Amino acid sequence: MTVSETLPVLVSLPTSSSILNTSTVIAVTVFVTLLCACIVIGHLLEENRWANESITALLLGLASGAVVLLIRKGQSSRLLVFSEELFFIYLLPPIIFNAGFQVKKKQFFKNFSIILMFGICGTIISFCLISLGAFLLFKRIGVTTLGVKDYLAIGAILSATDSVCTLQVLNQDETPFLYSVVFGEGVVNDATSIVLFNSVQSLDFSNIDAMTAFKLLGTFLYLFFSSTALGIVVGLLSAFSIKTLYFGRHSTDREVAIMMLLAYLSYMVAELLSLSGILTVFFCGIVMSHYTWHNVTESSRVTTKHGFATISFMAETFIFLYVGMDALDIDKWRDSNASAGTFIAVSSTLFALVLVGRAAFVYPLANISNCLKRRDSDKIILKQQFIVWWAGLMRGAVTIALSYNQFSGGTSSESSLMITSTIIVVLFSTVMFGSVTKLLIEAVLLRHAKPTMSDAGDFASLEDLRLLFLENGDPSDNSGNQTAPMRSSFRLLMRHPTSTVHYFWRKFDDRFMRPVFGGRGFVPFVPGSPTGAADETSEI
Amino acid sequence: MTVSETLPVLVSLPTSSSILNTSTVIAVTVFVTLLCACIVIGHLLEENRWANESITALLLGLASGAVVLLIRKGQSSRLLVFSEELFFIYLLPPIIFNAGFQVKKKQFFKNFSIILMFGICGTIISFCLISLGAFLLFKRIGVTTLGVKDYLAIGAILSATDSVCTLQVLNQDETPFLYSVVFGEGVVNDATSIVLFNSVQSLDFSNIDAMTAFKLLGTFLYLFFSSTALGIVVGLLSAFSIKTLYFGRHSTDREVAIMMLLAYLSYMVAELLSLSGILTVFFCGIVMSHYTWHNVTESSRVTTKHGFATISFMAETFIFLYVGMDALDIDKWRDSNASAGTFIAVSSTLFALVLVGRAAFVYPLANISNCLKRRDSDKIILKQQFIVWWAGLMRGAVTIALSYNQFSGGTSSESSLMITSTIIVVLFSTVMFGSVTKLLIEAVLLRHAKPTMSDAGDFASLEDLRLLFLENGDPSDNSGNQTAPMRSSFRLLMRHPTSTVHYFWRKFDDRFMRPVFGGRGFVPFVPGSPTGAADETSEI
Repeated sequence: MTVSETLPVLVSLPTSSSILNTSTVIAVTVFVTLLCACIVIGHLLEENRWANESITALLLGLASGAVVLLIRKGQSSRLLVFSEELFFIYLLPPIIFNAGFQVKKKQFFKNFSIILMFGICGTIISFCLISLGAFLLFKRIGVTTLGVKDYLAIGAILSATDSVCTLQVLNQDETPFLYSVVFGEGVVNDATSIVLFNSVQSLDFSNIDAMTAFKLLGTFLYLFFSSTALGIVVGLLSAFSIKTLYFGRHSTDREVAIMMLLAYLSYMVAELLSLSGILTVFFCGIVMSHYTWHNVTESSRVTTKHGFATISFMAETFIFLYVGMDALDIDKWRDSNASAGTFIAVSSTLFALVLVGRAAFVYPLANISNCLKRRDSDKIILKQQFIVWWAGLMRGAVTIALSYNQFSGGTSSESSLMITSTIIVVLFSTVMFGSVTKLLIEAVLLRHAKPTMSDAGDFASLEDLRLLFLENGDPSDNSGNQTAPMRSSFRLLMRHPTSTVHYFWRKFDDRFMRPVFGGRGFVPFVPGSPTGAADETSEI
Repeated sequence: MTVSETLPVLVSLPTSSSILNTSTVIAVTVFVTLLCACIVIGHLLEENRWANESITALLLGLASGAVVLLIRKGQSSRLLVFSEELFFIYLLPPIIFNAGFQVKKKQFFKNFSIILMFGICGTIISFCLISLGAFLLFKRIGVTTLGVKDYLAIGAILSATDSVCTLQVLNQDETPFLYSVVFGEGVVNDATSIVLFNSVQSLDFSNIDAMTAFKLLGTFLYLFFSSTALGIVVGLLSAFSIKTLYFGRHSTDREVAIMMLLAYLSYMVAELLSLSGILTVFFCGIVMSHYTWHNVTESSRVTTKHGFATISFMAETFIFLYVGMDALDIDKWRDSNASAGTFIAVSSTLFALVLVGRAAFVYPLANISNCLKRRDSDKIILKQQFIVWWAGLMRGAVTIALSYNQFSGGTSSESSLMITSTIIVVLFSTVMFGSVTKLLIEAVLLRHAKPTMSDAGDFASLEDLRLLFLENGDPSDNSGNQTAPMRSSFRLLMRHPTSTVHYFWRKFDDRFMRPVFGGRGFVPFVPGSPTGAADETSEI
């Protein structure tokens, strides 16, 4: 943790009587106190639909930055330097892992094709539009020193939506379809935009040819599939080792520790192999909740379920606090050396590009998806498209981290201008969209008392499927007459692709996977009835 | 976290395709992998009485240090630089907090006077003897450049026992009396030796007078009582706020997070006020397990109980891994510039001084305590004295951290010699005493099937007390005739001081504390029956 040593000693302590560096102690104490304050305020504002913990943390961070700035007489607002390592190594992995661990897997896989389409094609469309827009518009504002690489980087930086904040404004139980689409897209989008960003940085712009786009696509596909596979492998490894060694016999703590460490290891190994750690740890979380979680003792289950959620929750709050406090960093504002007019022009241009870039893929892609679906209940209605567009407009810590990475080394004043403008976009979008989204969803979708079709349709289609299989006989039972069920399953696959895949996956899972890796119903011993909440995480 | 940037890139990765610093990623990956290995090996060796997780971690750390040394062709064994901040800010607090949280409070307070005597007077005796011994003996070996301050520092450094390792070799259930004495002493001892060390560093040796010793004592008493009070206040604050605000209504995660954060805050505030964070967080843990833990929801209870234990367990294992890996750091060995003979002479002198220094207070103080006790069952028998002596001989991470603090800035080769000798003493004592202690306790105490008197006597004396109060009438009930019970309580206090204090504490607790701060039987709502294990932590 790169802790800034720049804070002067506020209180005149006898420095010799402590082994620790006082500035670190002050910084940590302030952050822990602010985290406590965020939690208490967040609890008290729970019923309030305008505020949530992210916004509270952001505003508290801004306020404490202002206080630090006053105490130091305008020299610096920093207690901690924004560190990409702190963010990508310590804070992001638990958040994404927990998202995978707690996600409703059935919904997620049901909407998998839409999620992939939005997350990959959508991000690429948004990237192209924002880069092009910035390239065309910035020259008119007076920003002249940026190169092609910088414009492409801006596209990648501002295409990264804030999946963390999405988790807080959308409710998994009230709007499961929207939650799974927007959040799932957020995870894939994070991976896509980081891959795009890395590709932009490594591209040699002196000789671009037709192959560059294909190379980019190839790199992306390689990263996507290998990262996912790594996550699944580590998840299965954890399930297998916990089932075989059965740590819970001696100690619950070892079980919990090995689950945490293996999840984290999956992220670090992915980073070490230059894959996308975010995708890896997300899928590792999914596999762990499907297999590993059922192999541990009852107390380990409760501990991991709530422990992971707590760690993730603290990391999220910490990030917003950190971003808020960092926003007032006076050095950056001074370095950027620009007038208020330029700040506003650049920030609003970027913000407009974000709005347009997202609209440019959500509506077309949603309509393409609707054309491919036969059943009306599977289609994404216009109101839902609007919410998907709106809820994904927030930009967050990934954007800031990438922006620092690209521009903090730059010597020109326009590099600082880009960082500060990015921060303005992040703050503005988080506060504005974060506070209004909950109300908007209520106003647009829920109050009109029209049940969201896609959610209701889910069980109906599964029920249909079961009836159809009942008519045709279960393909696994009557092995003598195989042609008829085979043909009928093919017909089913064409008619209800997701449900059929799900049906066959369950059969495969029950027959081959669960006996080896454990899972619900295949645990070595059941020390007590699982809690009610426990069943939610194991839906697939 | 001061992560060394010195590791070269082992694999030739496309550095541009990752945002993160590769050396950090490698270091974290290696540590997480080794932690997993320690847990698996520790699990497999669970039945083995020779090994435990500390020793496994230490040896694994040594082995991986050797591997790194080989890969780098003898240049450096370091993946992470030993950082006092990492140790004192991030690793030690969860360990000590968890110790307070899980300690059997009844045993701990029953032996409180012995613990304080050993922890304070004992540490001071040991400090004086080791300083004096080093001063007299080192000149004969050929160590000449150290000053008076260095010798006093050596005394403080080597008086710090390893309370972390003690937790692993003693069993709270098998030998509760020994566990509470040795572990409780370890916590007080850590505080005492850090206070001594700080005092030595801040002392002005140009004008020492008779007042210096009194000043030291005054400082120590101030630190002891204010640190304890701070811990109790933060613990009560957490109980009160959780009982009043009732976070569990909305979210289990907030409850768990606020407990973690407030516990950590108590440590940081203590460090900020230059108090002893170790004592503060220990007492905060005790208060939290007595009040706060009963005010939260059932799932928060399970989560905190196992979550805190898991974090503490991982921090312990990490420390041993770290110490093991750091021991092979080639620069220090090169800097010390000494012959193998000098190493052996200095290390064995220090080790002998540790043995003598501990024997010099355990036996006399135990016998003084025996003289003050009337009942034979309360006395510490010779075998138990031997185990107390033996189990407290291990030196650990506190010793290494203090040694770095004192000597790492020094330019002379003898400063490096001191660091390396301290590391040898730590490694040798941990491996030797750690591996033999379990067997020894079994051989000396348990196999002879003689029940350890002090443990058995506990309930008998409480039973006596209840009978006596029954005879005299409960002092709280018949307020008309107060003289007789008052006299009888005084008589009881003289005869059974600990039990009487305990009895009055319970009355006070039930009437004044629990209604305000919650606690067993005073929770706002009981969502289910508490788990069996849950009752163990709330004994007082």
